[in-house]
Parts: sequence; structure tokens; C-alpha cells
Amino acid sequence: MAEKLRIGMLGGGRIGKLHATNIQNLVQDAEVVILADPFMNEAMEEFAKGIGIPKCSKDPADVFNSPDVDAVFICSSTDTHADFIIQAANAGKDIFCEKPIHTDVKKINEALAAVEKAGVKLQVGFVRRFDANHKAVHDAAASGKLGKRYVVKITSRDPEGPPMSYVAVSGGIFVDMMIHDIDMARYLADSDIVEVSTFGACLTDPHFADYDDVDTAIVMLKFANGAIGVIDNCRTAPYGYDQRVEIHCEKGCVRDDNVINNTAQVLTGDTVESAKPTWFFLERYNDAFVTEVNDFVNAVRNNTEVPAGGKDGLESVRVAIACKKSLLEGRPVKLEEIEK
Amino acid sequence: MAEKLRIGMLGGGRIGKLHATNIQNLVQDAEVVILADPFMNEAMEEFAKGIGIPKCSKDPADVFNSPDVDAVFICSSTDTHADFIIQAANAGKDIFCEKPIHTDVKKINEALAAVEKAGVKLQVGFVRRFDANHKAVHDAAASGKLGKRYVVKITSRDPEGPPMSYVAVSGGIFVDMMIHDIDMARYLADSDIVEVSTFGACLTDPHFADYDDVDTAIVMLKFANGAIGVIDNCRTAPYGYDQRVEIHCEKGCVRDDNVINNTAQVLTGDTVESAKPTWFFLERYNDAFVTEVNDFVNAVRNNTEVPAGGKDGLESVRVAIACKKSLLEGRPVKLEEIEK
Amino acid sequence: MAEKLRIGMLGGGRIGKLHATNIQNLVQDAEVVILADPFMNEAMEEFAKGIGIPKCSKDPADVFNSPDVDAVFICSSTDTHADFIIQAANAGKDIFCEKPIHTDVKKINEALAAVEKAGVKLQVGFVRRFDANHKAVHDAAASGKLGKRYVVKITSRDPEGPPMSYVAVSGGIFVDMMIHDIDMARYLADSDIVEVSTFGACLTDPHFADYDDVDTAIVMLKFANGAIGVIDNCRTAPYGYDQRVEIHCEKGCVRDDNVINNTAQVLTGDTVESAKPTWFFLERYNDAFVTEVNDFVNAVRNNTEVPAGGKDGLESVRVAIACKKSLLEGRPVKLEEIEK
Amino acid sequence: MAEKLRIGMLGGGRIGKLHATNIQNLVQDAEVVILADPFMNEAMEEFAKGIGIPKCSKDPADVFNSPDVDAVFICSSTDTHADFIIQAANAGKDIFCEKPIHTDVKKINEALAAVEKAGVKLQVGFVRRFDANHKAVHDAAASGKLGKRYVVKITSRDPEGPPMSYVAVSGGIFVDMMIHDIDMARYLADSDIVEVSTFGACLTDPHFADYDDVDTAIVMLKFANGAIGVIDNCRTAPYGYDQRVEIHCEKGCVRDDNVINNTAQVLTGDTVESAKPTWFFLERYNDAFVTEVNDFVNAVRNNTEVPAGGKDGLESVRVAIACKKSLLEGRPVKLEEIEK
Repeated sequence: MAEKLRIGMLGGGRIGKLHATNIQNLVQDAEVVILADPFMNEAMEEFAKGIGIPKCSKDPADVFNSPDVDAVFICSSTDTHADFIIQAANAGKDIFCEKPIHTDVKKINEALAAVEKAGVKLQVGFVRRFDANHKAVHDAAASGKLGKRYVVKITSRDPEGPPMSYVAVSGGIFVDMMIHDIDMARYLADSDIVEVSTFGACLTDPHFADYDDVDTAIVMLKFANGAIGVIDNCRTAPYGYDQRVEIHCEKGCVRDDNVINNTAQVLTGDTVESAKPTWFFLERYNDAFVTEVNDFVNAVRNNTEVPAGGKDGLESVRVAIACKKSLLEGRPVKLEEIEK
Repeated sequence: MAEKLRIGMLGGGRIGKLHATNIQNLVQDAEVVILADPFMNEAMEEFAKGIGIPKCSKDPADVFNSPDVDAVFICSSTDTHADFIIQAANAGKDIFCEKPIHTDVKKINEALAAVEKAGVKLQVGFVRRFDANHKAVHDAAASGKLGKRYVVKITSRDPEGPPMSYVAVSGGIFVDMMIHDIDMARYLADSDIVEVSTFGACLTDPHFADYDDVDTAIVMLKFANGAIGVIDNCRTAPYGYDQRVEIHCEKGCVRDDNVINNTAQVLTGDTVESAKPTWFFLERYNDAFVTEVNDFVNAVRNNTEVPAGGKDGLESVRVAIACKKSLLEGRPVKLEEIEK
Repeated sequence: MAEKLRIGMLGGGRIGKLHATNIQNLVQDAEVVILADPFMNEAMEEFAKGIGIPKCSKDPADVFNSPDVDAVFICSSTDTHADFIIQAANAGKDIFCEKPIHTDVKKINEALAAVEKAGVKLQVGFVRRFDANHKAVHDAAASGKLGKRYVVKITSRDPEGPPMSYVAVSGGIFVDMMIHDIDMARYLADSDIVEVSTFGACLTDPHFADYDDVDTAIVMLKFANGAIGVIDNCRTAPYGYDQRVEIHCEKGCVRDDNVINNTAQVLTGDTVESAKPTWFFLERYNDAFVTEVNDFVNAVRNNTEVPAGGKDGLESVRVAIACKKSLLEGRPVKLEEIEK
Repeated sequence: MAEKLRIGMLGGGRIGKLHATNIQNLVQDAEVVILADPFMNEAMEEFAKGIGIPKCSKDPADVFNSPDVDAVFICSSTDTHADFIIQAANAGKDIFCEKPIHTDVKKINEALAAVEKAGVKLQVGFVRRFDANHKAVHDAAASGKLGKRYVVKITSRDPEGPPMSYVAVSGGIFVDMMIHDIDMARYLADSDIVEVSTFGACLTDPHFADYDDVDTAIVMLKFANGAIGVIDNCRTAPYGYDQRVEIHCEKGCVRDDNVINNTAQVLTGDTVESAKPTWFFLERYNDAFVTEVNDFVNAVRNNTEVPAGGKDGLESVRVAIACKKSLLEGRPVKLEEIEK
């Protein structure tokens, strides 16, 4: 292995650029050696050059075939994730893949099989696990000092809803948005989810219904370890990105709160004002994106377990599918009903 | 009407003593003129004398028949509430009744019919509506400045679970404990509940199951106005009485937090410590109990609407029944399935 | 001693009424048996009757001479405090006296001498020591777990400035307002003050200067135990009563914050709003007034030390005199310069 | 001017490395083209190479003489600052200089004269002005909506005291540590300081006294605009870096609080624990260091005023000198007593 982990970046969109910039500037033990994107153009090449990526390509094969690439970052569109995982695994590259692996369980299983056969690492981009706040909540419960977990609660609201054009192809709120919270719930409960029940509504825009989708959803969860939980999602929250988690346990409770823009408080005869939460995931999970990659790089270099692996990628999708089924059929859905 | 509203107190147990003491010491426009309890004894008479109640009796009829009594406080055991309401109404007394009116919808309807026929006031003791914190949340949404309500969330945890002897006769977590949160949900949403779905578990003590009961429950709610909501309850929370509510709306979100014992914070090299939430309802809702009675007294004296009336008493019980049905049958339950 | 401590109340103004009402309604082991005020009138008699005080008088001697009075509350105008203490002591009554004992050190010493000779209790009304928040700060440092005290900090701001007619006779900001903070500083530092230095300014109203007074003052303190401290006062704070204390120590820091009207927080696209601090001392120190009296009653009944005694009353006045001297002379002033 | 502002870095110690790394990774419009340090060695050259600095030198003249250098960062030892400013100014380079410019007013004036004559920019490294929290406090008062400023308060405590070897050459707490707070006070008050009064003590270690120094100090301030203020400093605070500011104004108050490591809160039957403040200036002012440089780069490129200039550098030193004089002479000191 070269001194730094040499990364081939697949996808030069928003998330690919984010990871590439972080790796070049803030991740000490890795460097991006090639950026591949079928829509490679002058602007993207400029970007790559600006952050010191030596090579660009329109052809993903240039990443898989290069002996100079140790690991692959799959930041392309969701429908390509599973196939790229298979190709990367077959080429013997370690893999970081943005979530979700796929929306089809069969395809996920194919990808995981390729990974297992090749014996490479696969980390799925559940960035929230690396947020200092959520991690502190997780760690307090995981330490055991709070005893048995009883209830896991997660609130997650985006500041602004997506355009309907996006909603049409998003796969719906569960696989598109709540999947992060589903993974968080599994992470916080330290347990698989075995049953869900969903209530949802179109409150911000009736057109969500055109796609069998909702903009506001609450999902109750039963975990394999006996705990229960609830996630509430909303596509809009004009005050910013609302991201809070809580675990109520036998001997106590641990919860976090939003990160706010500053700690100043203005007190007048009229009111007391303080700063709003950070606006969206780029602000809130800014540091978490770097930690996530550092942890992947360390897991590869030290041959240790990745912090969010293939099974996490698979289960989060299965639960999201169950949530939608529960919404559409108006009844609780057991995970055993969903294809494994 | 005499200068002060003259109150006949039915029941000299914990809650009766609480109201009587508040009225004598902290409610300016009312006075307790008689305390009646079938278990009247020397200690109870001492108590009454100590706070200046001039008369005691073993016979509730002494309250209903007295021309010196303007209004009746029903603080006796739950099974007597409905009958006492009927007797008080027939005697033309205004009525403050502790929750629940009854656990049987038929009996509640009989009581409400008597109240309506007599044209007297009936306020049900949903004390949390009078808590300054929850009220501020309610008022922010009710002001309209936050736009349409989307999601109502309520967390309610008791510090310590009840003894099994109490669980056996409590009617279960929904009618005994969650009923307060159900009323709070209706109050915050400003809407009736039309459907519920319940997940529950016995996590603190497996013996709850002996009574078809749970110690931990999450209930999702659909409101008539389109909003959705969720309540989570737990019988134990060793850090104190956990009482938080939240309304997420079109233009913003409003939420409150627990009341803590003091604002001091101790920062050391090891940790940052602050005070725990107040221990239980007597501390947390101390002021609310006084406000509740003041509001009842004012409603009677000024002939205005009581802030929590018979319909609120009825609906909260119907929803509690639906919650339990959902738990036992493992499916969402519509309120139209429950006797009206 | 009778079953309850029988109290003679001197003074039926705002603070006398406050204490009398608290004693009658909220202090179990005491009762007011007589209210004396030279300006006794029908309204004051009505008030007394309303809260169950059996006797009223225009003559303070009726309090001192009554064998039915165990203890005296001196809530009359400041200039009468010292003389009433002497008369009460000579009559063998235990004494609760509002602050300050007097603005003249000689008179204070006379009063303390009478108290000592008579062997009665004297508690001075430094109510803030009984505030749950400040007390928690005190107790954290007093526990010893934070090690040596380094710095004591106190912020104290009134919501609204007094009228100039009051300023004219108030004795100035130090003896009128900061005296509470001076006592708090001594309480938190657990040490006498040995030197002060003052900066002051007339910022809210230039007319304070007409009385050699200021509306805004900062005073640095040196304590006998080596710690240093600072108090800042302002006559106006339109957001409410600002009362915060802090002790920075060898092993950590402890500080409290204002008590706010409720815990609700409203988050919108524009701002995040929360409730204001309580408006003034009646709201903020409401519970402390009751605790203070309970502690006095207990000290008398159990013959234990009062929590704020004659020396505290004397020293706070001496320090206030030193603060003003420092302001007027533009230099630090040692307490040894002030008459003992 | 080249596309990016080309920076010559003087000094490869902790702060020089910090700025260089930030510029290379996080400041888009600037790049470090040379690093000069008389103690240049292999490790420093490795560092430079690692972050893409193309040239290293032992000779500062290589920076001043290079036509490829647009601006100079002076991050060398304090005693060299003034001379380097003069050389940079004479070479026509814009200048960013770490604080303090010098501890001798004469030398500062010489440096400022050279800057003025050359017409170059000089920004002094008062990084705290760029902290989002302190800036929000400043901006709230500067907006005018709070009316006239009355009181400025600053608390600043380092987590751990420096070794005595450092204390010996530090120039004392005022010029070494409080100088940041003095600048912050001037920034928040938007006014010069005209008089100070100091109380100080050796509480953490008696050896501070060996150098006429203290480890704990409180300084009262009078501002030219009539406001008053107070700064309290302590060399140790085992819970972390304590950095809080406050402005009390005519129509309200604005204050910030420490930045904490995460928002998680753990509630148990024993206590409520939350995260500690960030440990030291590298964590707390991490973002501020980047903003500071960005603002300098923008001021140079757009020829606008720097946010903290030569006069700020001069005045902060003069006030620090006055603070120490006040401590040693035991009296308030007017700034007019200090060499201009």
C-alpha cells in the first residue's frame, strides 16, 4: 500500500465533490488520485485540478482498472451503486458507497455477495453515525451505565422540501429521507428492527400523494431486543435542519439537541432571541463527513471493521420498504414479510 | 352567590387535600365550606380544621343538600365520579371533577346528560392544560403565527412505577396515565383524534403483562384536522418527571422542556452537571393546580366556558380505550369503532 | 412556647404584607398574632382579617409588651429597624429584621449589643440566600469538591429604575440595591470583604448625579480568604430581573442563570424565541421568602443558629459604605477605613 | 496581483503552522508561497512540502525581497513583530501580524509610522473578533436596536496555566493573556478605554508573584463613550476554555456562552450531565482563524479597511500597561498616564 490510501472517486456531483475536497484538505492519510464521471466536463476538471486531483476520466473502468487505486468512493447516482460495488469488489478495491446501496433488495444482496467473495471492505455512507452529538448519545447508552434500552426516539426534519420532479424519482420519503433515521435507530438501539407501523400525511403539498408519497411521517419501531421506538420526519422546517435523538433507558435518559449557529442570546423587553439551528446537512454534518472518511481510511489501513457496513445498508432499505408498506396498507408490518 | 364561591369537597385523599389546601390558602375567590368522605376520621377532621374548613361529614349527601354549597369538587375514587356528577348536577351545583369521569363510556354519557339538563358547569381536572410551559406551547400555535399544525409530540414519563396492586385496578396505562397526554394532544392540536396505533412493551417489569398492560407505550395519532402526532409513555424515569410537548407547524416549531430544580451548573475537569427535573406532578404542576381552580372559579362566577369540559372528559377516555384496543389487536383503531 | 411560633408583625407595607401572607398560608409552624403599624387603617385591618390575623394596633408597644408574642418581624421603614430591634431584644423576643438594620454603623452596633445582651435570635432579611439557585451555587463551593475559591461574580439588575423621589432618600445604589449582592458575595465566598474598588456611571438618567448617586456600578472585591470578586449592578434591565451568580474555583466553576417564565421555545424562519426572566423580586424570590421564614422559625424553635445574623447585617452595610467612598474618592477603599 | 494572494509566512511555530495550513486548505483566495524561519529544519521543510508550500528559507529577507510575495504573515516571536512590520512595509507588502505588535509603545509607533508611510494594510491577529459567537454579540449591540451601551463584561479563562519558564518572559497576564479581552472590550463597546482599575491575586501558584505577576485578575474599565466594563481572567479552568462576553444596554442585554463539545445530555437518578466546553483556543477559535484570514485577504484584494488594525494593536497594549500599573500601584490608572 502506498503511503496514503489512494482513492478513486466515482461521481463528481455534490456529494462526490464534498468527499473529494475533504479528502484532499482534511483527511491526512488519503488522497484522491482519479475522479471519474460520465458527465465529466471542463468545470469538473477545473474543480479536480483546483484541489489537486491529478487525473480525470469519463469512464468508471479507469478507476476499477487502475493499479494505483486502493479504494473506491461510489458517489454516483443511486441506481449505479450496486453495479459499481460489484465491479469494485471484483477489482479487489475497498469500497465506500453512499447510501442507499440500492432500492431493490435483490440487487443489494448481489452487491454484498460480491463484496464478501472478494473479501474487500464496504462502508455505507451513514454519515450521522459520525456526528459528535448523536455519537455521544449512542456511546452513553452503549457504555451500559444506563442499563437496558427502553425507547429510541428520532426527530428529523429537512429545512425545505424537494421539488416535485425530485419527489417523482426519489423512491419516497422512507427510502430517500428516513433511511438515515432508520440506520440511526438501529445504531442507537444496537438492535435490528422487527416491526414497524406508519402514519403519514401530505401537509406541506398535496402533490406528494400523486406519487403514493407523504411529506410528514411518523413510524413506530419494535426492535429485536425488546425496545420500542419512534421516528418522525417532515420535509419542511423553516427554522433549519432539525436533528434530535434520544434513548430512554432503565437507569436514565440521554438525548441531544440541534447544533445552533452561535450561542448569543439577546434579551429585550419584548423577547429573548437566540440563534437558529444550522441550516442543512452540509453545516450540521460538516465535521461528521470528515470523521466518516477518516474512519473508513483507518479501517482499510488497519484491516479493522468498518463502522457501518453492508448489513446496515441492507437492513435500512428493508425497513424503509416495510415503512412504506405499512403506510399504504394501513397496518403494522413485520420485517419478516420483507424480502431478505 | 356569596362573596366567595363556596365549595363542597368530596374526598379527603391526596388530591382532595391538595385542592382543599390550595383553595384555602391560594385561591382568593373561593373557600371550602365542607369536606365529605365516607372514610372521614379524626386525622382528616384535624386536617380540615387546620386549614379552616368549618364542617366535615361522612355523607356526600350533606354536600349536595347544603344550600351553602355553590360548587362541588369531586376528588373521590374514580368509580364514584359519574354518580357524584349526576347527583351534583341534579342539586344544581357547578362541578369540578378529577379525571377520568369514568372508564365506561355509557356512564360518562349519563353524567354529561345530567350536566346538560341541569345547565351547570362541569370542568374536568386536566391540570396540565394550566401548566405555564405547555400553555405557552399551545398558545404559540393557537396564535396562528406558526400556520397549520403538522405534528404534535408528547413525552410523559413517571419517575417511579406504581405497585402491582395498583396496576391491577388501574385500568391500564392508557386510561390511568396516558389519558393526561391524550387530553394534552387534543388541546395542542385543537382537534379531535380520529385514529390511533399503539406499540407497547413490558420493559420495567414483566408482571404488567399479567393485566394485559404495558409499562412503556408509544401511540401514533391522526387528528380530524389532518395533523398527526405521537405520545410516548414510560412508567419509570429515575431522573424525575419527564414532561415535554412539541408542535411542529407550517411556519415553525414550538416545544417546551422539563422544569428543573435549579439553574445552577457545576463545571469541572470531569463533567458538567446541572439540576434534575422536578420529581413528580406535585412539584411540576404545583402552580397549575392553583391556576386550574382559579379558572374554574372564574368560569363559574362569570358564567363563561370552562377550559376543559365534559366533551374533553369523554373523548380522552374514548381515545384511551382505542389505544388499548390497538395494543391488544395489533392494528390501528379508528375512533369510530369506539362507542360514542 | 405555644404550638406554633406566635409572631408580632411590625409594619403593614408591601414587605410586611408579603411576610404575613406567607406565614398565614405557607409557613406551618408559625402564625401572625398581631399586626402593628402607626398608619393602621381600615384597609390594613381588612387585609389582616382576610388572612386571619386576630389583632391590629397602631402601637408597636402592643407587640413588644404582649406575652402572646414569641417573635417579632420588623418590616417597618429602615430608620426604625435599629430601635425596634433594641425594644424587641429588651422584651426578650426573637427577631427577624428586614435589611438593612440601619445605614449608620453606630446604630447597628447598638442594636447588635442589645441582641447579644438579651440572648435572643436576630435574623436579617437577606432573602437571596434562600433562593434555590444561588443556594445550589453556594453549596457546590461549600461542599469543598471544587477546591479553593478564586473568583466570585454577581450580576444584579432591576427591571425598572426607581423614581427620583425614591433615589433622593434611598441612601444610594450601594446601601439600597447592592447591599443584597454584597451579602451574597460574603455568603458565596464564605469570607469577609477587606477591600473594594468602584466604577460607576449615570447612564439611565443624569439626575442620579444630583444625589451623588449612580445608576450603574461595578465593584471589585478582595476577600479575607484571598479570593477576589466583582459585582455589577444596573437600575434598569427591560427584559426583567437579572440575577446571576458564579464562583470560579481551583477545580471547577459553578454558576446559575435567571429563572425564566416558562421553558417554551418557538423556532421559525426568522428567529428562535424563548421566555423572559421573571419580572422582579416578588416572582424570582417568591419561594425564597417562604424558605427564609421557615428557616427563622426552625432556628428559633430548635435554638440553632440563624442563617443570616447580626454580623452579616453589619458587614454588608460597612461594605456598602466603602463602595460609595471608593466611588466618590476615585480609589480603592480598605474596609479597615470604615467604622467597625 | 496574481490570481490568489501570494503569502510569505514568517515563522514556522505553532501559530505559523496553523495559519499556513488553513491558508493552503481552507482559504480559497490565497496561497503560501514561502515559509521563512531562522530555525528552519528538515521537519519544518517536510511540513511545508506536505501542505504544498513551494519554498522554504532561513532568511526573512527572502520574503521581503521576493516579487512573488503580495502579503506577509508575521507569526514569529513577539520581539521581532515591530521590526518585521517595518521591513515588510518598506518592501510594500501588506501585513498580517500576530498580537501583540510589541510590548513597547515606542516600537509600536515606529511600526505604525512605517505602515502609514508605505500605505500598506496592517491587520493585527485579534482572532476573537471573528468568532461567530462574540461577533453575534457585537453585531446585536452595533445594530443599534439595543440602544446605548451601559456595561461590557468579559470572562476569559485558560484551561491550564503556563509553565513558570513561560511566565518569566510572558510580560505578565495583562499583555500576554488579557490583551485579547482588552481588544474584545474595545470591539464590543465600540469605544476606546480611558481608565482602568485592577485587582489581582496569585491563587493557582504563588510563584507568579516572583515576576510581579498574578494568575487571577479582575479589571474594571471606563470607556470614552461613558460605558463601564469589567474583564475577569484566570490562568486555570479545569473544565476547559471559558470564553464569554456580554453587553448590557439601554433596551436589552446580549450575551454568549461557551461552545461545548456536543449537545448530548445524560439524565440519571444521580445527576444531569452535559458536555464540557471546548478545551482551548485551537478548538474554540478554529473557524475564527480561517475567517480572520479570509477577511484579511478580502480587505487586501478589495482595498477595504481591515477589521482590526494598527490602532487596535497599539491601544490594547497601552491598556494592558495601564492594567499592570494599576495592579502594582493599587489605584485606578487613566490611559492619559500611559505613553501614546
